[in-house]
Amino acid sequence: MNNKHGGNISAFAKHINCQPSEVIDLSSNINFVKPKIEIDFNNLDISAYPNYEALYSAIAKLYKVENYEIELYNGATTAIYALFRTLNLHHCTLYAPLYGEYEKSAKASNYTIHYVNRLENCYEEVKENSLVVFVNPSTPDGHFYDIEKLMQQWIQKSCTILIDESFLDFTNHISALKFLKSYSKLYILKSMTKFYAAAGIRIGAVLSSKTNIETLKKHEPLWKISEFDSHYLQSALKDTTFEQKTKEIIAENKEYLIILFQQFKYTETIYPSSCNFILVKLQGLSAEAFQEKLLSSKIMVRNCANFHFLNSAYVRIAVKSKKNLQLLEKALFQIK
Amino acid sequence: MNNKHGGNISAFAKHINCQPSEVIDLSSNINFVKPKIEIDFNNLDISAYPNYEALYSAIAKLYKVENYEIELYNGATTAIYALFRTLNLHHCTLYAPLYGEYEKSAKASNYTIHYVNRLENCYEEVKENSLVVFVNPSTPDGHFYDIEKLMQQWIQKSCTILIDESFLDFTNHISALKFLKSYSKLYILKSMTKFYAAAGIRIGAVLSSKTNIETLKKHEPLWKISEFDSHYLQSALKDTTFEQKTKEIIAENKEYLIILFQQFKYTETIYPSSCNFILVKLQGLSAEAFQEKLLSSKIMVRNCANFHFLNSAYVRIAVKSKKNLQLLEKALFQIK
Repeated sequence: MNNKHGGNISAFAKHINCQPSEVIDLSSNINFVKPKIEIDFNNLDISAYPNYEALYSAIAKLYKVENYEIELYNGATTAIYALFRTLNLHHCTLYAPLYGEYEKSAKASNYTIHYVNRLENCYEEVKENSLVVFVNPSTPDGHFYDIEKLMQQWIQKSCTILIDESFLDFTNHISALKFLKSYSKLYILKSMTKFYAAAGIRIGAVLSSKTNIETLKKHEPLWKISEFDSHYLQSALKDTTFEQKTKEIIAENKEYLIILFQQFKYTETIYPSSCNFILVKLQGLSAEAFQEKLLSSKIMVRNCANFHFLNSAYVRIAVKSKKNLQLLEKALFQIK
Repeated sequence: MNNKHGGNISAFAKHINCQPSEVIDLSSNINFVKPKIEIDFNNLDISAYPNYEALYSAIAKLYKVENYEIELYNGATTAIYALFRTLNLHHCTLYAPLYGEYEKSAKASNYTIHYVNRLENCYEEVKENSLVVFVNPSTPDGHFYDIEKLMQQWIQKSCTILIDESFLDFTNHISALKFLKSYSKLYILKSMTKFYAAAGIRIGAVLSSKTNIETLKKHEPLWKISEFDSHYLQSALKDTTFEQKTKEIIAENKEYLIILFQQFKYTETIYPSSCNFILVKLQGLSAEAFQEKLLSSKIMVRNCANFHFLNSAYVRIAVKSKKNLQLLEKALFQIK
């Protein structure tokens, strides 16, 4: 079945003829640990036009920046399209494998695309004035890169730099925000929906200099984010125990998942990940065949064949609840 | 105070030092009649990526078009920006007065703007290949135009046509959708938040030919609309009594509002409106002074001075609950 991104639960459920609620989705990277939400959404006043001041302030506080250094979009993917369009450059360098919407948005804005295979050589020379896109930690492997040396290389070539930190909140690594003061053509992207466990809410943030943000704002409508989503995120950000709790549970369950795949006879390589998912290279079993064998257990995993520089030997598995991973374990042992 | 659009309740509340809930907002055009919503938002699963199929189908059914003739945006304003950008034309003709975001989005996409004063002469000659924007019924007056003759004029000049029908659902008038089959460069815009009483949800729809919609889709991200918003609207559309109920209550309260202003000594003209608001031209009292005099009653009305071809003699008043209109009545009688 065609499931290019992962996470399309309803299509999967239809395919195997079950209810969406029965599906065990290990294909999408959404945090399965949920923040405590103290909003009564049924009594939220959604009649008036939204005012985003409190939301901006909450995100500014989280990332220790100023409100005017942020532009919010209805999802990180919307932000990607807006950036490619508004920066209006001609050439981009995508460090791949990476999220597929980068290619789509680059094409929509008529960029010439050069792919760097970061798994082989990160330090390949870049073109002058290129828009470089680096996802850190990267997907679908979850590797966090120390980008100091890369930054120097990009700056030397006057590149515009987009660091996508949509999964950084899962780690204890330091953000590229530290470079904001010293390089003006730097943009940091944050997805607010993955760590905060809600792909159904659409909020993503671009952090950059005041001047860059002002330019982005000129192309943006007065309102764009749902009042529901705004309140969900503001409430999630108030849960002071959530970050620590997520990190502990994800670490524990990830270890369980890794041990599972270490025992699985078709595993060739498990990539070290700092995120809530792992990339596994299979041997003797294709990603498609692996997916097929999990169908009867109603388990979805991500076939990574459509990522640049990967092929159908690769699958990505998300770290989810112990219960769901135990169901995966059971399924794995049944695979002959 | 600066309130360019209307509806900025929190800024108004801050200005007069009261709680936002105390403000009587007659400045924004949101339906005060609310649809019956049968969703428990507190138990909605928002962890997964949204799937918009059911939402598209519900809107397609409402407007009697096919799913592939629709592109949804997170609000009509977002749709406006996307259209100007994606159509990528150079000249636009804005029939004014009209919604201020049209000028902003035209400028953001580097259009040359020509304004036609539709209050004086709708039939002014238009430039070949221009993008014409006609809001029908129009704001801030609520007048519905029979656009047959205008359509012929625009088509003769090979114009791309955008008819903004964000307020049509309040009326019994016929949609410009009837022209879709006969002219390929026609786009119809629908705001789904005004009639359905929720400016806090962000959904707007562009209806056009299959080919045009496919082109628009190339520039759009995989996900953009909140799962909360999607479910709100789907539920609202299931309330079969809502349309009739809205029309009856709005008609009754609008009559009450008109009689009020007929008795108000500073009224010069009340514009006939088919919508949920009325435009009033004042004499002997400016819009600013009028707004000032309503402050102590915590009532917000829309100063129309920043609309093209209007000035500070014009105010727009929204049709709201009888209770709120009675408070307005009380305030009006106190104005010396």
